[in-house]
Amino acid sequence: MAQKPSTPKGTRDFSPVEVAKRNYIFSTIKTNFEKFGFQPIETPSFENSETLMGKYGEEGDRLIFKILNSGDYFKDVRKDVFESAKVTSTIFDIIDVILKSIEKNRNNDEYDSIVSKLLEIYSKRLINKEQAELIKFKFDENKIRFKEFCENSISLTEQELYTKSIEFRRTVFSLFFEKYIDEFPALNPQKASNKISEKALRYDLTVPFARYVVQHQNEIEFPFKRYQIQPVWRADRPQKGRFREFYQCDADVVGSNSLWQEVELVQLYDAVFSQLKLNGVTIKINNRKILSGIAEVIGASDKLIDFTVALDKLDKIGEDGVKKEMLEKGISETAIEKVQPLFNFTGTISEKITKLGDLLASSEEGMKGVEELLFICDNVNEIGLQTATLDLDVTLARGLNYYTGAIFEVSAPKGVDMGSIGGGGRYDDLTGIFGLKNMSGVGISFGLDRIALVIEQLDLFPETVNATSKALFLNFGLEEAKYAMKAIAKLRQAGVKVEMYPDNAKIGKQFQHADKRGIPFAILVGEDEMKNEQFGIKNLASGEQEKVSFDVLLNKLSENK
Amino acid sequence: MAQKPSTPKGTRDFSPVEVAKRNYIFSTIKTNFEKFGFQPIETPSFENSETLMGKYGEEGDRLIFKILNSGDYFKDVRKDVFESAKVTSTIFDIIDVILKSIEKNRNNDEYDSIVSKLLEIYSKRLINKEQAELIKFKFDENKIRFKEFCENSISLTEQELYTKSIEFRRTVFSLFFEKYIDEFPALNPQKASNKISEKALRYDLTVPFARYVVQHQNEIEFPFKRYQIQPVWRADRPQKGRFREFYQCDADVVGSNSLWQEVELVQLYDAVFSQLKLNGVTIKINNRKILSGIAEVIGASDKLIDFTVALDKLDKIGEDGVKKEMLEKGISETAIEKVQPLFNFTGTISEKITKLGDLLASSEEGMKGVEELLFICDNVNEIGLQTATLDLDVTLARGLNYYTGAIFEVSAPKGVDMGSIGGGGRYDDLTGIFGLKNMSGVGISFGLDRIALVIEQLDLFPETVNATSKALFLNFGLEEAKYAMKAIAKLRQAGVKVEMYPDNAKIGKQFQHADKRGIPFAILVGEDEMKNEQFGIKNLASGEQEKVSFDVLLNKLSENK
Repeated sequence: MAQKPSTPKGTRDFSPVEVAKRNYIFSTIKTNFEKFGFQPIETPSFENSETLMGKYGEEGDRLIFKILNSGDYFKDVRKDVFESAKVTSTIFDIIDVILKSIEKNRNNDEYDSIVSKLLEIYSKRLINKEQAELIKFKFDENKIRFKEFCENSISLTEQELYTKSIEFRRTVFSLFFEKYIDEFPALNPQKASNKISEKALRYDLTVPFARYVVQHQNEIEFPFKRYQIQPVWRADRPQKGRFREFYQCDADVVGSNSLWQEVELVQLYDAVFSQLKLNGVTIKINNRKILSGIAEVIGASDKLIDFTVALDKLDKIGEDGVKKEMLEKGISETAIEKVQPLFNFTGTISEKITKLGDLLASSEEGMKGVEELLFICDNVNEIGLQTATLDLDVTLARGLNYYTGAIFEVSAPKGVDMGSIGGGGRYDDLTGIFGLKNMSGVGISFGLDRIALVIEQLDLFPETVNATSKALFLNFGLEEAKYAMKAIAKLRQAGVKVEMYPDNAKIGKQFQHADKRGIPFAILVGEDEMKNEQFGIKNLASGEQEKVSFDVLLNKLSENK
Repeated sequence: MAQKPSTPKGTRDFSPVEVAKRNYIFSTIKTNFEKFGFQPIETPSFENSETLMGKYGEEGDRLIFKILNSGDYFKDVRKDVFESAKVTSTIFDIIDVILKSIEKNRNNDEYDSIVSKLLEIYSKRLINKEQAELIKFKFDENKIRFKEFCENSISLTEQELYTKSIEFRRTVFSLFFEKYIDEFPALNPQKASNKISEKALRYDLTVPFARYVVQHQNEIEFPFKRYQIQPVWRADRPQKGRFREFYQCDADVVGSNSLWQEVELVQLYDAVFSQLKLNGVTIKINNRKILSGIAEVIGASDKLIDFTVALDKLDKIGEDGVKKEMLEKGISETAIEKVQPLFNFTGTISEKITKLGDLLASSEEGMKGVEELLFICDNVNEIGLQTATLDLDVTLARGLNYYTGAIFEVSAPKGVDMGSIGGGGRYDDLTGIFGLKNMSGVGISFGLDRIALVIEQLDLFPETVNATSKALFLNFGLEEAKYAMKAIAKLRQAGVKVEMYPDNAKIGKQFQHADKRGIPFAILVGEDEMKNEQFGIKNLASGEQEKVSFDVLLNKLSENK
């Protein structure tokens, strides 16, 4: 292979430094998930296709990576193409006999009996019963064409008739072909896609989790707090910050309606981002029932998305602009008047909730949403957050058809240009798609890649994140190497990360290796050191060098190991 | 969906307990990899097909999971089936005209000119130039059949000729069809497999690592010590201990020939298994050059595998049995005599190496192997291992075509019925397949699933491995829950894993939940406790209960957190 190999479009290699940075984020998320009582599960990278298909809408289905069945699909295509050719030639034969009869009689009264007789013969010889019936049906469907051809043929010469017959045969054949081709499983896209692929790569962690809960319902102790940190795959067009393979980090509770969970999930976001030193994130909250209430008040639930999309532009295009857009989208002036308070929707969360309460007083569902919001916000407020801010955003509508209660989204600190870095919500019927009813679920997700980009941009990765070896023992030859390796074995048993340069290369090259690898200390062992059971230790940043005993060496290298 | 959903064949869900156990092993391996100076990389789950195909032999290629290209394959099949039908009907037409001419003239002198003329007409009307030429070629190839048919037809009546013509047409069509079908890319297995799939799931970690090294050669500081712990996928028939998705844990050094690395890899195996308390594993070592030497001595490198397979049965079938099998496999008596010392191949490693030295004295390559073995074993011996035993096994030949130097395999402690739990070796030309020459690599791999089975069987998982929450705060109602949640927030900030039962359920049920989850403490908060700013803490194992202040609570729950 002459060409330099590469990774597939939309996928990435991660170097040691990158892995270390990502692991720093993973491990912070994981630690906090566990502090909040969530426990890890893992599901297979691929699921049976029927588990995933139809769960993410048409667009989602298209973006699911399908795995080719091992082995036999091509054989099937080939078999079906041959089968279909048999039918083709049978159809040709039958058409020809009919044409022959027309040629002789210039009259197709015999059409029915000829076809029946032929099908009988051919069904025994060449085609199976289903195919014979299919052909019979197609001929019956096209009877009128033969009649017409017959009528038009009366005045033709024999030569003209022959030429016309060949043309006619071709036309009839095409018509037949377009229909009967679908009867062959390997040639029919709908049927073939099952034959060709029965497995598909995980598209998110929510559907596999729902499948897990239903499959293991008898072993699970509910309420079940699970977290899952695994890659997912999407056949999306790759672009900046969007990959075909990426990690999701999800925490969900299933099997309880308690709103304390929403309170805890807000705290969990705060705990993770605070520990990552990503201060100033905003956790936006909304509630599906609030949105339903607004839909009721504006008198049209089908206009709800238009409404929230327009309202979301308030900062950019002002009240008049928003109202203009709403009118254009067919929301009535009366409706807009009714929700006038939303155009001046500022203040503390409590103030906003009070405004919503006034606005939605007439909507039972809306008021349920107000009540839920109040519980969550009051308690979050009373217990307190470390560095994040909770804010109510009535335009927040992600996964509108999915969530039934709280909706969350986290935005990066102000000044960082990045979409949401997390999101989630409550869905009352998480496992219904797999036949287990009345299982409420609520959960949040962390966007690993975007969080990494933000932390990189704000330069918040700790310096110690890339934990390379603490010291490189230089290699001065066989005897020195033996002496070094004995010390190294003891250091490693004490938990210190150390290594020896494997070859007796030029010392400059070895120092350079330590430098490029970011290893802070070089250990030098010469005849002198060996005789005195000592080790030369050189701090590569300061250049300081000294000779020490093994115990001192161990101590020095054990600091911040 | 009425049917209970399930995971695909050969894949597994992992429950929290299982994840915890596996993470215990992963984290032990990882810690030791890093102590030995290895750094993590990660590669994408799927690679371009050409990166993987042809690297694992024919059997391997068959076991690689291929990913379906998104979109258009079925359209292509359909298009090609329609295209092929057009050609089919053209062939029918041409055959018919030829038959017609035969019918008229009972003589096929005109055959050539008729075919040429027809092809001209049809190539303009219905088929493209390539197809026209293909058909022309096929007709030319089958000229003889038409001639024969013509000769045989002279004596037939018109009716007989007509019937025979239809039969003949069918025969000729079948012959044509079998050939020209391959010209359609979507219907030809060889051509279609590229169209249908361009990506494949990782089959192991070695080939992606080689690809990584070549792709990033300019950023890598050599020698490069990398580890990689990621899942791989194989479309193998699932059976006990063999899965379609499983993790590999690999450590490799690339870019140095130093044998110190072999020494370190033996120590690394010892360090991991010792830390896992899996005492008594045997690290078996051999060398490809020793095997080459033996091949030289027995006079036939093609008999080497037969030889080692037979020799490996020494314990079971005895010296006579082994010799009998060797003779049956065509190894000469003289050859067997020459390697007689291998039939009594006992003693310490040094003694074995000495015997090998005598045996292979005449083989230059064999003696190079002896020298390498000597260096590795001597130094391992001098520095010492913690709990593992190093042993020389001249029958060890895994990946014979792959390794060029040391070969390793680890077997579980005696008494445990399990195949190898690790293996590895040196391959002088790791990256040659991707065009980067002279990069020697040496590495080892840990078999996670088998190690887990052995640890389970020997009951060696630490009790603390499943780190569930330290305490469950019971839920006695809204006010009590608020009081509890404030304490919980502070405990979590101090790093303690705690949670509250989310609903105000019956207390018995809440206790049961703590019990089933394996949570050691229940925290009870009633009016009294709230008034006195205290917490009731109950040890669920001993039943002991007391009232304590927050600080005492924090202390108690911080032990072994």
